[in-house]
Amino acid sequence: MNAEPVKDLSRLCLHTITTKPWNIEEAARNYSKAGVKGITVWRDTLEGRDIIKTGGLLRESGLHVVSLCRGGFFANTEKAKRDLAITDNRRAVEEAFKLGTDKIVLVCGADPRQSLEDSRKQIYDGICEVLPDAKAAGVKLAVEPLHPMFADTRSAVNTIKQANDLVEAIDSEYVGVAVDVYHLWWDPDLEEEIYRCGKNRNLLAFHICDWKSPTVDMLNDRGLMGEGCINLRKIRSWVEKAGFNGFIEVEIFSNLWWKQDQNEFLERIVRAYKEHA
Amino acid sequence: MNAEPVKDLSRLCLHTITTKPWNIEEAARNYSKAGVKGITVWRDTLEGRDIIKTGGLLRESGLHVVSLCRGGFFANTEKAKRDLAITDNRRAVEEAFKLGTDKIVLVCGADPRQSLEDSRKQIYDGICEVLPDAKAAGVKLAVEPLHPMFADTRSAVNTIKQANDLVEAIDSEYVGVAVDVYHLWWDPDLEEEIYRCGKNRNLLAFHICDWKSPTVDMLNDRGLMGEGCINLRKIRSWVEKAGFNGFIEVEIFSNLWWKQDQNEFLERIVRAYKEHA
Repeated sequence: MNAEPVKDLSRLCLHTITTKPWNIEEAARNYSKAGVKGITVWRDTLEGRDIIKTGGLLRESGLHVVSLCRGGFFANTEKAKRDLAITDNRRAVEEAFKLGTDKIVLVCGADPRQSLEDSRKQIYDGICEVLPDAKAAGVKLAVEPLHPMFADTRSAVNTIKQANDLVEAIDSEYVGVAVDVYHLWWDPDLEEEIYRCGKNRNLLAFHICDWKSPTVDMLNDRGLMGEGCINLRKIRSWVEKAGFNGFIEVEIFSNLWWKQDQNEFLERIVRAYKEHA
Repeated sequence: MNAEPVKDLSRLCLHTITTKPWNIEEAARNYSKAGVKGITVWRDTLEGRDIIKTGGLLRESGLHVVSLCRGGFFANTEKAKRDLAITDNRRAVEEAFKLGTDKIVLVCGADPRQSLEDSRKQIYDGICEVLPDAKAAGVKLAVEPLHPMFADTRSAVNTIKQANDLVEAIDSEYVGVAVDVYHLWWDPDLEEEIYRCGKNRNLLAFHICDWKSPTVDMLNDRGLMGEGCINLRKIRSWVEKAGFNGFIEVEIFSNLWWKQDQNEFLERIVRAYKEHA
């Protein structure tokens, strides 16, 4: 059974990167005006800002700050680069704390110069190293498994099963999983692994968009909900059956949509959310 | 333990699409001259040819005709299109028979207008329908699981586990699996599922190339062996441990390499085969 259509916008969250041409102040103003209730902040939008004040501005705009995007990139053959990643993840935790969000999305990293197993070991170690900081700040780390087409350089965690294995091995209430339909829709184990994730209270986030046919760019050709082949309502029904009732986050990287008028795009997003999410 | 380097070219097979600018006669002449021992023929190269004579020409050139590429595309929401696919697959079986090869590679198909489960059901049905023809012609059908980035339109069979499940369900010595490193290298279950495949005598083919970082085109930016991050010798060691000792087939779709002088490319292939395969 597919999920029922969403009743209203109370669970709608947008990733700032979805409307990349806007700065954070424009995003806050326009999201708010459109009735969006949550925002996931990409770190580049905070550059040159007072983060505490920016968090305040978002809340004053009626937006819940759902998460900070993104930490991770723990895997590297070079020790010095891995150390830099740890430093950067600690900084992300601090930014999340200042911004007033309790969650960071992790794109875990991969390095084509080494095996996926080595990358995964480094990811495990990296998360464990950052974990005390995350706990202290009350910030949860959400491991986002990435599509296998990103296994070379972006993440050696490519299925939700691998993400579940990883977070269960770490076994902390501060580490969980972010489910993004774009990365996971094809996986024959998806339903079962979503339930496993929920059962262990590890399901921290739910990201949506769509997979277009054809997809002409591996990174920046994601579709608006309804433009592609992902059965969003079915996957949402699994996520909700697994106990998740948090924000539904729209995360679309799209060279095409970024070229359009962003206010019109935002209208389309709200409509597509109601019709397809 | 990785596999030992190949000793010679006795197991080297090229897919005609790897040197796409060449017609089949040029491919035969040049492969033969370079010491290549096997050829997998893409069907487009047979257009306008007498297939029986072409098969003869290949054998006279000292080439073993390893397989015909490709059948499949069984999945479609439209019954009429599925029927056309069956007809086309029967034609492929006839072509394979005339060409004198005992194997057809299947790209099973997918349709973004329907669920992956529906596509998989149609794939199962399609293979079962073509199977009597394949048996009669002594031609085996090799299901090639395709990378999840092709799950929308090319194949709803995206892991070797799914391919194993499918061929075991069909349970015929005329249906097996083609392992292509490009599609499967990222899969955490790859080693185990290769052994399962071998144990059931279903491992029919082994295709190699490499995954480049960055990959700029989803379809036609495959790398020459050694250009990317795939541990070819490790995967070959698994395939051989699983009992496979057939041809090692070089299948590279590459806009970049197709633009180069194909004789130089062929030299590079032979060298890369010795150094990295």
